[in-house]
Amino acid sequence: MNHAEQLQLDHDVLGWLQVERNFILAHVATGVDVQTKKHPHDFVTDVDRQVEQHLVKQIRQRMPSAKIMSEEGGGDHVTDMQGDVWFLDPIDGTMNFVVQKADYAIMLALYHDGEPVLGWIMDVTANRVLHGGPSLGVYDRTEQLKQVADIALKDGLIVVSGGRLLAGDFNLPQVVQHALGYRVYGSAGIAYLHVLTGQAVAYLSRMQPWDYAAGIVLAKSLGLVFGSVDHDPLNMLSSRSVLVATPRAFAQIMAFEAAF
Amino acid sequence: MNHAEQLQLDHDVLGWLQVERNFILAHVATGVDVQTKKHPHDFVTDVDRQVEQHLVKQIRQRMPSAKIMSEEGGGDHVTDMQGDVWFLDPIDGTMNFVVQKADYAIMLALYHDGEPVLGWIMDVTANRVLHGGPSLGVYDRTEQLKQVADIALKDGLIVVSGGRLLAGDFNLPQVVQHALGYRVYGSAGIAYLHVLTGQAVAYLSRMQPWDYAAGIVLAKSLGLVFGSVDHDPLNMLSSRSVLVATPRAFAQIMAFEAAF
Repeated sequence: MNHAEQLQLDHDVLGWLQVERNFILAHVATGVDVQTKKHPHDFVTDVDRQVEQHLVKQIRQRMPSAKIMSEEGGGDHVTDMQGDVWFLDPIDGTMNFVVQKADYAIMLALYHDGEPVLGWIMDVTANRVLHGGPSLGVYDRTEQLKQVADIALKDGLIVVSGGRLLAGDFNLPQVVQHALGYRVYGSAGIAYLHVLTGQAVAYLSRMQPWDYAAGIVLAKSLGLVFGSVDHDPLNMLSSRSVLVATPRAFAQIMAFEAAF
Repeated sequence: MNHAEQLQLDHDVLGWLQVERNFILAHVATGVDVQTKKHPHDFVTDVDRQVEQHLVKQIRQRMPSAKIMSEEGGGDHVTDMQGDVWFLDPIDGTMNFVVQKADYAIMLALYHDGEPVLGWIMDVTANRVLHGGPSLGVYDRTEQLKQVADIALKDGLIVVSGGRLLAGDFNLPQVVQHALGYRVYGSAGIAYLHVLTGQAVAYLSRMQPWDYAAGIVLAKSLGLVFGSVDHDPLNMLSSRSVLVATPRAFAQIMAFEAAF
């Protein structure tokens, strides 16, 4: 996909996101029906499912041959990264959506033959979208973001998964003590926004591909470093514990991992 | 102070806050000079000090006989709660202010003979102020807030101090596991906004009087419960570990404390 085609697609997806934002806010105003999935803390709502349906339909019309990997099961069973592959999380941070009515995100990403092309993360309440990719650059709404400053762990905040920190995974209790401080937001999309805009130097959580695909497109485009902190490397098709960070913070956190 | 006088004071303080917000955002745009206090993670900036000076001056002009307890030392040495006592935190969440340029608050509170009269918490970036008191009611900008629903710990989020959780204080690692989830925001003011608007059911942190005074005025006005989880009760003059919560969550968390 050439530069002009990417620009057009980015423009179109930004339009889809505005439509879904209006849909979501209308449902928030009238009340949301909540179910739980496997785990009592793993919420899904009718809104998640409907936003997924809308966006899957848009993608199918726009790129009929593309494969779609999506959180609520409305996409395809994707087994390889050949050709165009979309990742979709209709509402990331569903618990925040249900309980807080804030701090949740819509995330979309497009990869081609395994290479990141475009990503979108929308903070729905704030009506803020980070979008772009390696070719277009990354924009915060309409303002182009600079490459992130390479700040060390001790001089920045780290955003972590509350559950992983409490479980003591990845040496996190030690890692966070070497940062300026840590934050827990309950949404991968909101966490990524902090790292991508330089508000935090690192984010670590165990995630599904639709949780990390958009963040990785944008992180790569801004000079951030990412990778799996599990034994298995990232493959975009499986859940992984993903670290995204400035180059210095990444090396420092991985050194803690190695020591563990 | 009668109802009409409280309304007028509330109106005036909202004006002061807008002036200080503009002052702060102008400094954010041009860069902020940062120093550390006793502890390397305890920041103070020229902006903190200047906002304090401005607001202390406003209070002295408006209520010359009032005493002022303020974070950066520009107020009085307050030793009792007789008469009118103001509490002022010019920038709560200074680390967020410096590193994130978001999620920090200005907090003000007025007590008379130890009783809460009025409180103000401004999320500066969002230009959102929760304000009011037992007589006026509590307003989110101009919209009056309802009494909070009495939601149990298991059905809501708890906001905690990241440091206290990591240290294992107050049985927090167990407490947060009995909540729907926990969040760490790095600012007492931002945490209070979540509890006051029903986005979270509890907030627990060790705080100075200027960190908790405004939150308590507003919490009391909305049917929330608060108290010290240290051996010593709240006295408004000393640092305390303060829990503010829905009545049900308060009782549940205090039961954990008792078991500890």
